[in-house]
Amino acid sequence: MLYHVRMDVRPPHGIDPARLEALKAEEKERSQALQRAGKWPHLWRIAGQYSNVSIFDVADHDELHALLSTLPLFPFMEIEVTPLARHPSAI
Amino acid sequence: MLYHVRMDVRPPHGIDPARLEALKAEEKERSQALQRAGKWPHLWRIAGQYSNVSIFDVADHDELHALLSTLPLFPFMEIEVTPLARHPSAI
Amino acid sequence: MLYHVRMDVRPPHGIDPARLEALKAEEKERSQALQRAGKWPHLWRIAGQYSNVSIFDVADHDELHALLSTLPLFPFMEIEVTPLARHPSAI
Amino acid sequence: MLYHVRMDVRPPHGIDPARLEALKAEEKERSQALQRAGKWPHLWRIAGQYSNVSIFDVADHDELHALLSTLPLFPFMEIEVTPLARHPSAI
Amino acid sequence: MLYHVRMDVRPPHGIDPARLEALKAEEKERSQALQRAGKWPHLWRIAGQYSNVSIFDVADHDELHALLSTLPLFPFMEIEVTPLARHPSAI
Amino acid sequence: MLYHVRMDVRPPHGIDPARLEALKAEEKERSQALQRAGKWPHLWRIAGQYSNVSIFDVADHDELHALLSTLPLFPFMEIEVTPLARHPSAI
Amino acid sequence: MLYHVRMDVRPPHGIDPARLEALKAEEKERSQALQRAGKWPHLWRIAGQYSNVSIFDVADHDELHALLSTLPLFPFMEIEVTPLARHPSAI
Amino acid sequence: MLYHVRMDVRPPHGIDPARLEALKAEEKERSQALQRAGKWPHLWRIAGQYSNVSIFDVADHDELHALLSTLPLFPFMEIEVTPLARHPSAI
Amino acid sequence: MLYHVRMDVRPPHGIDPARLEALKAEEKERSQALQRAGKWPHLWRIAGQYSNVSIFDVADHDELHALLSTLPLFPFMEIEVTPLARHPSAI
Amino acid sequence: MLYHVRMDVRPPHGIDPARLEALKAEEKERSQALQRAGKWPHLWRIAGQYSNVSIFDVADHDELHALLSTLPLFPFMEIEVTPLARHPSAI
Repeated sequence: MLYHVRMDVRPPHGIDPARLEALKAEEKERSQALQRAGKWPHLWRIAGQYSNVSIFDVADHDELHALLSTLPLFPFMEIEVTPLARHPSAI
Repeated sequence: MLYHVRMDVRPPHGIDPARLEALKAEEKERSQALQRAGKWPHLWRIAGQYSNVSIFDVADHDELHALLSTLPLFPFMEIEVTPLARHPSAI
Repeated sequence: MLYHVRMDVRPPHGIDPARLEALKAEEKERSQALQRAGKWPHLWRIAGQYSNVSIFDVADHDELHALLSTLPLFPFMEIEVTPLARHPSAI
Repeated sequence: MLYHVRMDVRPPHGIDPARLEALKAEEKERSQALQRAGKWPHLWRIAGQYSNVSIFDVADHDELHALLSTLPLFPFMEIEVTPLARHPSAI
Repeated sequence: MLYHVRMDVRPPHGIDPARLEALKAEEKERSQALQRAGKWPHLWRIAGQYSNVSIFDVADHDELHALLSTLPLFPFMEIEVTPLARHPSAI
Repeated sequence: MLYHVRMDVRPPHGIDPARLEALKAEEKERSQALQRAGKWPHLWRIAGQYSNVSIFDVADHDELHALLSTLPLFPFMEIEVTPLARHPSAI
Repeated sequence: MLYHVRMDVRPPHGIDPARLEALKAEEKERSQALQRAGKWPHLWRIAGQYSNVSIFDVADHDELHALLSTLPLFPFMEIEVTPLARHPSAI
Repeated sequence: MLYHVRMDVRPPHGIDPARLEALKAEEKERSQALQRAGKWPHLWRIAGQYSNVSIFDVADHDELHALLSTLPLFPFMEIEVTPLARHPSAI
Repeated sequence: MLYHVRMDVRPPHGIDPARLEALKAEEKERSQALQRAGKWPHLWRIAGQYSNVSIFDVADHDELHALLSTLPLFPFMEIEVTPLARHPSAI
Repeated sequence: MLYHVRMDVRPPHGIDPARLEALKAEEKERSQALQRAGKWPHLWRIAGQYSNVSIFDVADHDELHALLSTLPLFPFMEIEVTPLARHPSAI
């Protein structure tokens, strides 16, 4: 089942730069593992912003929440989820 | 080049129902031609709304505007365009 | 799977009153059939507004959209869908 | 009497992690006691967010405020309350 | 139990003026009956707007909704309800 | 002359707890003195929020501003003022 | 006492042009009479919009509401009122 | 002096199509005359919307308002004006 | 040329109180010098808020920006500028 | 290809002033290099705000994001990007 997810990353001022870099590296690794597993089929950068638009393909809401809420940068992200249905004109 | 496009369809009260159905049929046909041509690679329905999330893959802003502004339902849509860049973590 | 749905009903000025009453009657009948089928387990009126808060329990996004988009008052409603996951403190 | 309550948890950057964990544990205990007492009949997680949607069933506004304002995480939550009336189509 | 209610009156363009005047007269009569009954203890005009701020004192959400939703101007009003609790500093 | 005032209290993270408690105690004393003087005839808590709705009855805008801007918690409050006129249907 | 008032004029589509012109002429006459009487000391056009920013100098909220609500274009205006106090740095 | 102007064109449903086309043709002619006169040095279409971003170069606010408020489509446009100053890093 | 300027002062938590008082004193001095010079003809306090509404009368956008951006409290203010044109009904 | 970019600079309270000045100097140098290279053809200050409106002329979304996300002040800016197409009335 597909979900449209927008993530805006907002690291707080004063965060330890080394810790932030470590979290970003973990986030990248985690994200690529999920992409390879087919759970995160699309990941795009919004031009000019520290934000992304993603498509997730997971079994249900619980799996989606489990994946998102354990992302290393989750505490510093604003996330908006939109459930996607099949469009009658899609081929 | 990829663009994220959200379209909310708002047909005005009082529109002739037959004209609206005709416009919807033309819209579907136009949308499917663009999908087949690779210009509109993704089209999803937002669950519970007369809205869609789409990804367009076109040469430039002018081509995008030409495609969107000639959609049969364009006069009745609110459209929001977001340019998408490659994400450094995308595989 | 559970979805939180808020519906705000906005009948346009100038709608034929008899048609509106007929649509409301159909909406009620449809809503009660879905409640009896277990698809719409909660339906509450927001005090002071022509709006409701509902919980739907359906198989997936497509079923949710199919149910909502065929409600008789759908053309006159603003609908907002929020996917609900299990809360770790829920008993 | 039923109230729809949305809570968004926003722990401030710089809060002591041990204190936060302790508050979360107290919050969970408190929440489950209220659920068992029938005061908090529904508690759902909003997918992708550190937020919940809850239904409270209490005697009046004063009791609701007393319960919410003494939750351990209350100082770090944005809370929105919506009074729910019986819906004429509810079965 | 007290509720804070804001009502913004938005008569649609094209409404028959005589009908609107009749509705306003009924609204006034209804409002004054509720004031005399102690259900609507405060009613103020927001300066410069066709809007009011009101305090209702009723048994529960259902009674509030029953009163508000049968006001003659209800179909042309945007209404916002806020439940009021006792303030610990109120004397 | 009546003014509708909404106050949302937002103590900053990191404020010294003892200082905050002292300010709250002064605020309560100040508020009750103004209530007894008839300047602050109504004070209600918004259920679920660290916010109040108040009615002030003062001579003019300058007196209102003098009272509000010297409240002990003023630096930590968002305040919205709405001037109230007599409603033609008020009895 | 001074009030800051912003008025946005929104004539509905379909209004009879002759009636609108008549209302505008009455509005101008009324506005100029109030300016000459010292009640409306400042009236500015917001560049690029059918809107104005005004300063009113009247006895109280009731007089302000009486003046604004009887302006010929009142039914087609969105009005926002802000009470102005003396600024401690004003000379 | 430079002004940043955003115009969103919102023709009302029900406008006579021939009249709308005539207004658009006049608007184009007027716009091009102002461009040739150096008053409207930049005019861009916002991709996907019936909107433009423009830069005007005029003597003062009054000239700007005179130009904008006499555009043929002015009654159907939402216009937002932002005054532009020289940027210290501009070359 | 006239500009409508709204300034909301938001001193950050943790600013040194002595420094803030010094900045306020400089701001007052600067403001009064500009008032005496005729550049800042009106300055009003918004009742209940640490905000003002001002009218500036300067040669052009560059002079306005130079004045505003060098105010001592500029780093702690949200500022909104609206260009004012002559109103056709102003006397 | 042209992009309209608005940048609002929001340096956090507590940033080291020397570091901020160094970042501003680097930003200026970087901005002027991009202007000379024809990538950033317009740069204007929004009067009264620490914000700019810019026009970028780059090959595609990726180049735009690469330029913006490496600006020295990027971590302290809110950036909004709008793709600009040719306007049919532009000469």
